[in-house]
Amino acid sequence: MLQSKLFCKTSKEISKETESVSGKLLCRAGFVSQLMAGVYTFLPLGFRVLQKIEAVIRENMAKPPVNGQEMLMPALTPKESWQKTGRWENFDALFKLKGRGEKDYALASTHEEVIAPLAKKIIFSYKDLPFYVFQIQTKFRNEARAKSGILRTREFLMKDLYSFNAEEKDLDAYYDKMDEVYLRIFKEFGIRDDRSKNKITYKTLASGGTFSKYSHEYQTVTESGEDTIYICQKCFVAVNKEIKEKSDICPNCGKKTSFEEKKTVEVGNIFKLGTKYSLPFGLTFRAKDGKEKPVIMGCYGLGLSRIMGAVAEVKNDKNGIIWPRNIAPYLVHLLWIENNAKVRGAAQKIYDDLQKNGVEVLYDDREDKTAGEKFAEADLIGIPFRLVVSEKTLEKNSVEIKERIEESVKLVGQSRLVKLLKMV
Amino acid sequence: MLQSKLFCKTSKEISKETESVSGKLLCRAGFVSQLMAGVYTFLPLGFRVLQKIEAVIRENMAKPPVNGQEMLMPALTPKESWQKTGRWENFDALFKLKGRGEKDYALASTHEEVIAPLAKKIIFSYKDLPFYVFQIQTKFRNEARAKSGILRTREFLMKDLYSFNAEEKDLDAYYDKMDEVYLRIFKEFGIRDDRSKNKITYKTLASGGTFSKYSHEYQTVTESGEDTIYICQKCFVAVNKEIKEKSDICPNCGKKTSFEEKKTVEVGNIFKLGTKYSLPFGLTFRAKDGKEKPVIMGCYGLGLSRIMGAVAEVKNDKNGIIWPRNIAPYLVHLLWIENNAKVRGAAQKIYDDLQKNGVEVLYDDREDKTAGEKFAEADLIGIPFRLVVSEKTLEKNSVEIKERIEESVKLVGQSRLVKLLKMV
Repeated sequence: MLQSKLFCKTSKEISKETESVSGKLLCRAGFVSQLMAGVYTFLPLGFRVLQKIEAVIRENMAKPPVNGQEMLMPALTPKESWQKTGRWENFDALFKLKGRGEKDYALASTHEEVIAPLAKKIIFSYKDLPFYVFQIQTKFRNEARAKSGILRTREFLMKDLYSFNAEEKDLDAYYDKMDEVYLRIFKEFGIRDDRSKNKITYKTLASGGTFSKYSHEYQTVTESGEDTIYICQKCFVAVNKEIKEKSDICPNCGKKTSFEEKKTVEVGNIFKLGTKYSLPFGLTFRAKDGKEKPVIMGCYGLGLSRIMGAVAEVKNDKNGIIWPRNIAPYLVHLLWIENNAKVRGAAQKIYDDLQKNGVEVLYDDREDKTAGEKFAEADLIGIPFRLVVSEKTLEKNSVEIKERIEESVKLVGQSRLVKLLKMV
Repeated sequence: MLQSKLFCKTSKEISKETESVSGKLLCRAGFVSQLMAGVYTFLPLGFRVLQKIEAVIRENMAKPPVNGQEMLMPALTPKESWQKTGRWENFDALFKLKGRGEKDYALASTHEEVIAPLAKKIIFSYKDLPFYVFQIQTKFRNEARAKSGILRTREFLMKDLYSFNAEEKDLDAYYDKMDEVYLRIFKEFGIRDDRSKNKITYKTLASGGTFSKYSHEYQTVTESGEDTIYICQKCFVAVNKEIKEKSDICPNCGKKTSFEEKKTVEVGNIFKLGTKYSLPFGLTFRAKDGKEKPVIMGCYGLGLSRIMGAVAEVKNDKNGIIWPRNIAPYLVHLLWIENNAKVRGAAQKIYDDLQKNGVEVLYDDREDKTAGEKFAEADLIGIPFRLVVSEKTLEKNSVEIKERIEESVKLVGQSRLVKLLKMV
């Protein structure tokens, strides 16, 4: 992509609504643009990151052990379904609107009210179980406060998976597998470290409703977060405030412990729903013994736009964002620093070469920017590898390469460049 | 995919709301499920078709000559933007809702009101032009009637592209290129035939607003359609009713002609907006001569879920849908007809082989269905190739293969099967 053509403008201007580091960086670097409080457009750079996050999540949800089938449910949902579960009245953040003939709709924040009655049309017998469906879809939530950039918005992209089992023990086993998959996904995104004491994203016990003692949230530590967690200093699993205040025994490891308090943002959660939604919708199945039993449900959410925000929140320095390679908008940021035909021509050739070889590259071909401006913008945008072409590098038939996370630069021969970048 | 595990149930039951052939077929075959009037869930089979339609459209919008940059705009939009263009009051089908503090929102049916003010933040000079951005996103429209399955819904997936040019002639040239690309896309989906008199999908002239004499709609002929077009019998371009009533001279070919009336569904449209949206939002640029001029805009829509409906509407027979290969949910539907270990084992081996070789296959492994039921469902679902394994085919180390569009079956040696299917 030619940067001169990119629909994006980095700027020093920041929305006043945006109090988070990630919100400031993502706006300044041209990944997102705020339309109004809590509502954002994903510009081409930001959309590329979102697509890559989506691809990682989709792959993990479709393959074993998750085995989810992808589908797409609507955002417009009928009042009647929400009344059946009591959430029309009780769920404060539900957006409500009216259609033709004064029909009441809700904009779905979650889809139990759609999937449970739908599953009732498809599930009849124990032979139809288990099954797992998921979607990656836009959710709406009428948040009271929405001021942390894309960490807490009124419209957001989410993956929600629903599990349907015959027995509680099957749900338990699936739930534990999903926990493992979630931690692996966060590791892929660079926001989980299993081996260090600082895990960055913490599995966090929260109260679980009527069916299970605990549900689990995945909380990424950041000062911009609006949640607070308490990390057990023995097992490094966290609890929320309500649980922490009850006891100084960690409910995860069972040991007497101290808890370290941290500000966080929730990037995912998993929940044993049990029969909470199958009962109101009459979602039952004929068991092996011939009896009708309620289906046992679970739900598993991941916030895609929130993960993007959390990564920017965790992976940055004073100059800008530092994207992990697998979700960076491009792998390579190519630029030249002397505006003459020879240097520009050499850079163009490298750009063409990289493109031909399937290396994703953003090429800063702009002639109205100084070298200093180009370097500053490259750091702000945070693409993993920066390539610089100059008179000096050309003398040595080389290109200067620098990793965004490193301080040092090195020269690479032009003939070796493509091979090197295809290997990383 | 094992059909026994597929989240879908074919049925003879049809929603009473669904008056279209495609709606009936897609519901019965388990591609979609109606949540309420005009609102549908895409079940896994239907979602696969939608994804394939999306991939074709995305590729065509990103590559030359279209050169669109993909982004994602929100559905929640502020009242103020719609007031600026007069559409808050005048656009009857706009869904309106209230947020915190009684703030008014509209659910976007189209995104001129978002993209024009956004472009204003990014465009300053003629050097920033031209550019083209698009999104594939869920739209909302409070339709008065919504009763033709997924042909006319209140929530639907759409591609909308916006062009920004400095000069009117640049818009004209881009608009003509887009017309060619649209016709090629419809051809790829099997709903356009350039060479026959029956073009299936017709370019249709409609009145163009203040900026251009005509806009263009792409209308697919079907009895379930709610639109009517009048096809010029000289040039086979159509006009809408308003234009037809004015004259018996075809505005496309300029000849005196007769018009054939057909019921249709609109699957796309292109529109020269000119300065209609740039003026209210002050979207100007500094021209080469130093003067501030309004940006010249165009918009280009394609309805993804509508296209899916239109294909099902056009491509079917009395037994079910006949998907074109490039958007079929799977390439191959594999089934066995004698339920014994030998036949099941052989089918399983073929299934594994096809999967290993990247052939998309739905395997009807269900033991509670008769051969007749399996055949009927295969026809209803409409996957391009049906493979049948039986005692008889195994005797000859073969599999029976039948194309959905053909009457005849033939035997193919098991050793040649993968190679054959990878070639089609």
